[in-house]
Amino acid sequence: MSLINESHDPSLKSWVAQANEPGSDFPIQNLPFAVFRRKGSDEAFRGGIAIGDQIVDLGAAAGSGVFSGEAASGATACGDASLNRLMAMGPSIWSALRLALSRALRTGAPEATILAGTLAPQAQAEYTVPARIGDYTDFYTSVHHATNIGKLFRPDNPLMPNYKWVPIGYHGRASSIGVSGQAFSRPIGQTLPPGATQPELGPCKRLDYELELGIFVGTGNESGMQVPITEAESHVFGLCLLNDWSARDIQAWEYQPLGPFLSKNFATTISPWIVTMDALAPYRVPFTRPESDPQPLPYLDSTQQREAGAIDVQLEVCIETEAMRAARTPGARLSLTSYRHAYWTIAQMVAHHTVNGCNLQPGDLLGTGTLSGPSLDQAGALIELTAGGKQLVDLPNGEQRTFLEDGDVVIMRGWCQKAGAARIGFGDCYARVLPAMC
Amino acid sequence: MSLINESHDPSLKSWVAQANEPGSDFPIQNLPFAVFRRKGSDEAFRGGIAIGDQIVDLGAAAGSGVFSGEAASGATACGDASLNRLMAMGPSIWSALRLALSRALRTGAPEATILAGTLAPQAQAEYTVPARIGDYTDFYTSVHHATNIGKLFRPDNPLMPNYKWVPIGYHGRASSIGVSGQAFSRPIGQTLPPGATQPELGPCKRLDYELELGIFVGTGNESGMQVPITEAESHVFGLCLLNDWSARDIQAWEYQPLGPFLSKNFATTISPWIVTMDALAPYRVPFTRPESDPQPLPYLDSTQQREAGAIDVQLEVCIETEAMRAARTPGARLSLTSYRHAYWTIAQMVAHHTVNGCNLQPGDLLGTGTLSGPSLDQAGALIELTAGGKQLVDLPNGEQRTFLEDGDVVIMRGWCQKAGAARIGFGDCYARVLPAMC
Repeated sequence: MSLINESHDPSLKSWVAQANEPGSDFPIQNLPFAVFRRKGSDEAFRGGIAIGDQIVDLGAAAGSGVFSGEAASGATACGDASLNRLMAMGPSIWSALRLALSRALRTGAPEATILAGTLAPQAQAEYTVPARIGDYTDFYTSVHHATNIGKLFRPDNPLMPNYKWVPIGYHGRASSIGVSGQAFSRPIGQTLPPGATQPELGPCKRLDYELELGIFVGTGNESGMQVPITEAESHVFGLCLLNDWSARDIQAWEYQPLGPFLSKNFATTISPWIVTMDALAPYRVPFTRPESDPQPLPYLDSTQQREAGAIDVQLEVCIETEAMRAARTPGARLSLTSYRHAYWTIAQMVAHHTVNGCNLQPGDLLGTGTLSGPSLDQAGALIELTAGGKQLVDLPNGEQRTFLEDGDVVIMRGWCQKAGAARIGFGDCYARVLPAMC
Repeated sequence: MSLINESHDPSLKSWVAQANEPGSDFPIQNLPFAVFRRKGSDEAFRGGIAIGDQIVDLGAAAGSGVFSGEAASGATACGDASLNRLMAMGPSIWSALRLALSRALRTGAPEATILAGTLAPQAQAEYTVPARIGDYTDFYTSVHHATNIGKLFRPDNPLMPNYKWVPIGYHGRASSIGVSGQAFSRPIGQTLPPGATQPELGPCKRLDYELELGIFVGTGNESGMQVPITEAESHVFGLCLLNDWSARDIQAWEYQPLGPFLSKNFATTISPWIVTMDALAPYRVPFTRPESDPQPLPYLDSTQQREAGAIDVQLEVCIETEAMRAARTPGARLSLTSYRHAYWTIAQMVAHHTVNGCNLQPGDLLGTGTLSGPSLDQAGALIELTAGGKQLVDLPNGEQRTFLEDGDVVIMRGWCQKAGAARIGFGDCYARVLPAMC
């Protein structure tokens, strides 16, 4: 697990002024990675890190000679159009690059003059999916979500007997993962209308978001080789925000017996910025479950996990409707929760995924599943907030929603803060629903 | 749909003598694609086509100037280490390359002298997965398999109400797809032993194969754009054999509610050779379902599909145990069936997969699901042949099996033959079970 070091010192300030503003997502203690280029240009996409309202072009920085040793190797790899090569290099290189950036971006750093020449304003950047994602796996790690949604699909049997033993997961679609800012057409599919005896084809009527975190795999494992839980986090590069768009009516009709398919694979939106495990070190909290629950099997258990397996990431979902945009009113918060409520940790996901010898590869993405908290206002999807579409959600401008309407933008945000540490953020993850194409 | 032309003429002979032997999988009417190199060498992998017991090195052939126009473009793309570029080029290029190869490989062809210099013996070749597979989707298109397996998992509800309306599918794991010849460790995982109240971790006790065909996507579709059923086959490059290894005990405990995961993603084996849709044109048969069954919704229906949507590919599974190898006795056939019994066609799979706007990409792989035929000896998995492990299968050497044992090799074969057409084959798809790593 990543250790706290000088790069986390909350008193550090940067010579990039906006990084020192209270409430900035990207102070010098954060340093998340993305892949970017100048908006509207035909430049090559390349890796960068966020500092305040700027991006350090890492390939350019490497070329300028401000880094040496492992940090230079890592920065050079970021000149690629995806972060896969950096991800494959492992924690020693990631940490060396972070430390070098922390030192070079501090107030008074001698590298400031050279590094300033590699800055690009975020306001003029566009992003792409930061890695070539070979496989995308979505987990189901919130017991609150699993219970809430289980009640709707299986009222007699909400939580399956395996839930408290198995970190349930399934494979999702890599090709339709897009970066924040994407717009997608409302999906069309088969549904069985209430009371009907045969299905019909048409635009989804119960379109939903799912508030998740995405976990980028760094170093992989060979086929047949398990990753023990004590080493699992060293295989993780970092976290992003993830919206697992879901067509609830299509899902209800298609999902048995092999799981969700077309109800999920039309679009998944992630934030451009990956916050590293190093950056998240100060916000670790104990991983606990009720004493009455079964304790994890040995391959899913470790002292380190019990003491600090969870991470306290605050998570928020907002909606911005067409009417709000027309009236220039801000989006409305739908829920607020924390990742600390998850029932299974990141290390447990990695150890479980590989216990059968399944090979993970650099750039693979794991989703946490919808991160609903214990109370209903902490629910991470409309299907929970509306009790399956039966209760309207009131928006501050007088509008109401059960599920999403065309033109709706869903915005997810995440941040960590605590006494004695800096506040760091994930930036926005947003996307817009377009009308169906038929 | 691909048309029959001069390349299918059963009277054609090749100047590669072994291609003219009765029973050869690779006569001049077949011309399947693979990616190969000399066994044990560090040569670059590159694309080739099979003719008799030889491989035409297509990149080398392109370089020798024997092709022109579209055929030359296609052959040049095969110089890559995967067939993705050729797959993206579309049916016009694929067909042009096939026709040029058919002409150049015929007895008396003036290209024989040059092309002979690009041949590599199959006996001295090794293969790799022929495409970079972005996403792997596994369907469930045999109603016989779905019914047989449904009876075991859900005796009260074997065939779900959606089965005859929805071509059920789910996403599988791309990273663990290997080519024929692979060996993999018996997976370890959580299972709930009969009568137990809590699960245990250990090597799978109910390891099974699944006899499938794999479908390689050629040209993709943009996100949000549906592929209509009448155009669906033009997006398909060709078929291979596929063994979807399955850990039945892990599957039974983990699969609810999100579907199979660790029970499937440790290994999937495909044959090296991709038989093109062009090559399969003579073996098309009507796609029919019982009149009492619901007819497909319009987006899954077309005249062309009804008239010739199915393909009569004969499929065989054999087992070769350690004892058979020690005694030098041949493997034993476990079942024989045909792809013509599938309930959903290839075009229906593609049209359904994209009806919600999901984007397919060149090199994506679709599995048909286990291709069990109507009678029990046509079952494509041991779980069906043994009624869930309750009935022993007798092997000719006196051994018996319920599920697979360490050292077992499973061999799958496929071929097409009919009066008035050549016999073409898929080659072998085999892999060996190694002991668990723990």
